[in-house]
Amino acid sequence: TLAAPAVAQSMPKINWRMTSSFPKSLDTIYGAAETMAKYVEAMTDGNFKIQVFAAGEIVGGLQAADAAAAGTVEACHTASYYYWGKDPTWALATAVPFSLNYRQMNAWYYYGNGIDLTNEFFNAQGLQAYPCGNTGAQMGGWYRKEINSLADVKGLKMRIGGFGGKVMEAIGAVPQQIAGGDIYPALEKGTLDACEWVGPYDDEKLGFYKVAPYYYYPGFWEGGPTLSSMFNLDAWNKLPDGYKAVLKTACEAANGNMMASYDWKNPPALKRLVAKGTKLRPFSVEILSAAYDASQSIYSDISAKNASFKKIRDSQVAFMRDSFLWTQLSEYNYDTFMMQMDNAGKI
Amino acid sequence: TLAAPAVAQSMPKINWRMTSSFPKSLDTIYGAAETMAKYVEAMTDGNFKIQVFAAGEIVGGLQAADAAAAGTVEACHTASYYYWGKDPTWALATAVPFSLNYRQMNAWYYYGNGIDLTNEFFNAQGLQAYPCGNTGAQMGGWYRKEINSLADVKGLKMRIGGFGGKVMEAIGAVPQQIAGGDIYPALEKGTLDACEWVGPYDDEKLGFYKVAPYYYYPGFWEGGPTLSSMFNLDAWNKLPDGYKAVLKTACEAANGNMMASYDWKNPPALKRLVAKGTKLRPFSVEILSAAYDASQSIYSDISAKNASFKKIRDSQVAFMRDSFLWTQLSEYNYDTFMMQMDNAGKI
Repeated sequence: TLAAPAVAQSMPKINWRMTSSFPKSLDTIYGAAETMAKYVEAMTDGNFKIQVFAAGEIVGGLQAADAAAAGTVEACHTASYYYWGKDPTWALATAVPFSLNYRQMNAWYYYGNGIDLTNEFFNAQGLQAYPCGNTGAQMGGWYRKEINSLADVKGLKMRIGGFGGKVMEAIGAVPQQIAGGDIYPALEKGTLDACEWVGPYDDEKLGFYKVAPYYYYPGFWEGGPTLSSMFNLDAWNKLPDGYKAVLKTACEAANGNMMASYDWKNPPALKRLVAKGTKLRPFSVEILSAAYDASQSIYSDISAKNASFKKIRDSQVAFMRDSFLWTQLSEYNYDTFMMQMDNAGKI
Repeated sequence: TLAAPAVAQSMPKINWRMTSSFPKSLDTIYGAAETMAKYVEAMTDGNFKIQVFAAGEIVGGLQAADAAAAGTVEACHTASYYYWGKDPTWALATAVPFSLNYRQMNAWYYYGNGIDLTNEFFNAQGLQAYPCGNTGAQMGGWYRKEINSLADVKGLKMRIGGFGGKVMEAIGAVPQQIAGGDIYPALEKGTLDACEWVGPYDDEKLGFYKVAPYYYYPGFWEGGPTLSSMFNLDAWNKLPDGYKAVLKTACEAANGNMMASYDWKNPPALKRLVAKGTKLRPFSVEILSAAYDASQSIYSDISAKNASFKKIRDSQVAFMRDSFLWTQLSEYNYDTFMMQMDNAGKI
C-alpha cells in the first residue's frame, strides 16, 4: 500500500486571488498582503498560491470586502473601517479615534479574544478575518495654515473620512471626500485647507509639503490602525486544517512585519521632509480635548442602539483603561529618556 | 506514474527537541517556544514536531545554546545575552543597556539586515537564529530602600547580571550572581539590597514586593529584549526549503505573539501589585545619566577591540538615532494624551 498520498492530499494545489484596497505605490501597506502571500507559498512548497491584485485591477479599493464576501475573489486585504457606513462595528477592527495603539491592538486581538469577537461579526457578513498589518499611530495631516485653537478648526475644509471625519465635523471642521489624486491640486488652489494621509514615508510621495507645509501630530483618529486579511467564509471553511493554520500564521507574521517596515522607513522620510521645509506641529490640548469629548459622545450614541458595536467597543475600552496605566511606567520612561539623549546628540 | 510522492516528500516526518532557557513557570517567555512549536506542527499536519523542554530537563538554562550548537538537541529557545561572557557580541541580539526598544528591534531585524548580521556571527558558532519573542521594556527591579541618588547606589548589593550588571557596577553598585530561588530569602535577610527580574506579571509570582517594596522603572538595561529560537546549523541546513519557511514564519509570528501576551498580562498584574503595597518609583535623571554615560564608555572599549561587536552595534546605533526622532512625534504624543485621559478617569 502507498501511504504517501494521504500526506500529499493535505497540500492540495490551490490558487486564490486577493484584492487589495491599496495601490502598489503604498508599498508598505500593499506589501503586507504580498508578504503574507509569499509566506504561504513558501511554506506549502508552492502548492497554495495567493495572487495579490492592486485596488482597481479587479474591483475598486472600497469594494474589496464585498468582493471577498460575494466570492468574486477568495480574499481581500483591506482596512475594515472603510465599510463603517454599512455598520460602525466594521470600524472597530481597524481603528476608531482615541482607541488602542499598535501593541494594545495586538494584545487585544491575540489574547483579549479580539479575533473571535470580530469574527463573530464578520462571519455574519460571509467573511473570516485576521489582523494583517498596522501603520502605528498616524500623523494628523497637512495644513496650509497653523491650527492653534478650535477657532482655527471652524470651517476648515479637510479631506478626512470615516469616524475621524465625524469627530472633526463635531469640533467645527468640514470633512471632504476627495479621491487620492485630486487632493494635491485642491490643496494647491485652496479649495481644500487640509488633508490627512498616513505618515512620513507615504505622505512624502504625494508631495503635500509643497502646498500645505504644517504637518500636525498625533493623528488621534488612528492610534494603531490594523489592516485585515479577509477570506470568503465558504472558501475558508473548505480549506484543509493545515492550510488554515498556514494562513493564520502567515497573517500573524505579516502583521508585525508591516509595522517593522513602517518603523524602518518612516524615520529617514521624516528627516527628508523636514529638510524640504515641512513644519512639524503638535495639536493643542484644546483641540485634542474637544475631539476626545466629541468622540466619547459619538461612541455612547452608537452603543446605545447597536449591540455588536457596544460589545466589541466595551471589550477594547476595558483593556485600554488598564493598559495605559502600565505603558506609562517602564516603556514610556525608557523611550522618554532615550529621546532626551537623542535630542542632546548623545546617541 | 505517481506524482504524489514528490509532494509527500516535501513534508517528511521530523521530530526535534528544543531546550528552553526558562522554567515553565515563566509561562509568557517559555510559552513563546510552545507557540512556535504549535504553529509548526499545525502547519505541517503534524509531520514536523518540535517538543519543548524546560530548563533543566535536558540541560540547564544557560547551556541551551551550547546544546543546540553541539547537536545534543536540534533547537533552543534562549536569550543570547546569557552567553555574553564568551563574546559580548552575543548580547546584541537580545539587548544591551540603552539600546533599541521592541518596535525598533523588529524594524532592525526584519528590515535593517539584523537577521543576516546576527546570523553571520551565529553561523560561526554552529547556529542559525531567528527572533522569537520580546518582553518589552522591563522594570528596573525591587529595592528594600529608596534609591534617589548615586550616593544611594554606592555599595548597593544588587542581583543583576550581564551588561546591566557591568553598568550598575560602573556607577557604584555591587552586582551579585544568585540563583532564582535564593533571591527572596537574601532580600528578606538583607544580604541583598535589590534585584531585577522582568516585569509585573513575572515578578508578582516571586513575591518580591513583600520584602523589597520599591519598584523602579525603567529597566534601562533591557529596553526591548528579544528572545531567539536557535537551530543547530547542520540540522537547519538539512531541512527542506518548505520547512525552513515554516520555521521562519512560525518564529516571526511567535515573536509578536509573546509581546502581545505580556501586554495583556502585565496591566492587571501591576494593579494587583500596587494594591498589595508595591511603591512605584522612577529612577532619577542623575542615576539614568550616569548609567548612560558608563554604558557608552563600555561600548567604545569593546568596539575598539571586537570587530563583530562593532559591526552589529554600529548598525543598531545608526538606526536608533533616527528612530527616536520619529517616535517622539505621533506615537509618543498619542500615548501621552491617552495617558492623561486615563489618569483623569476619562477612559
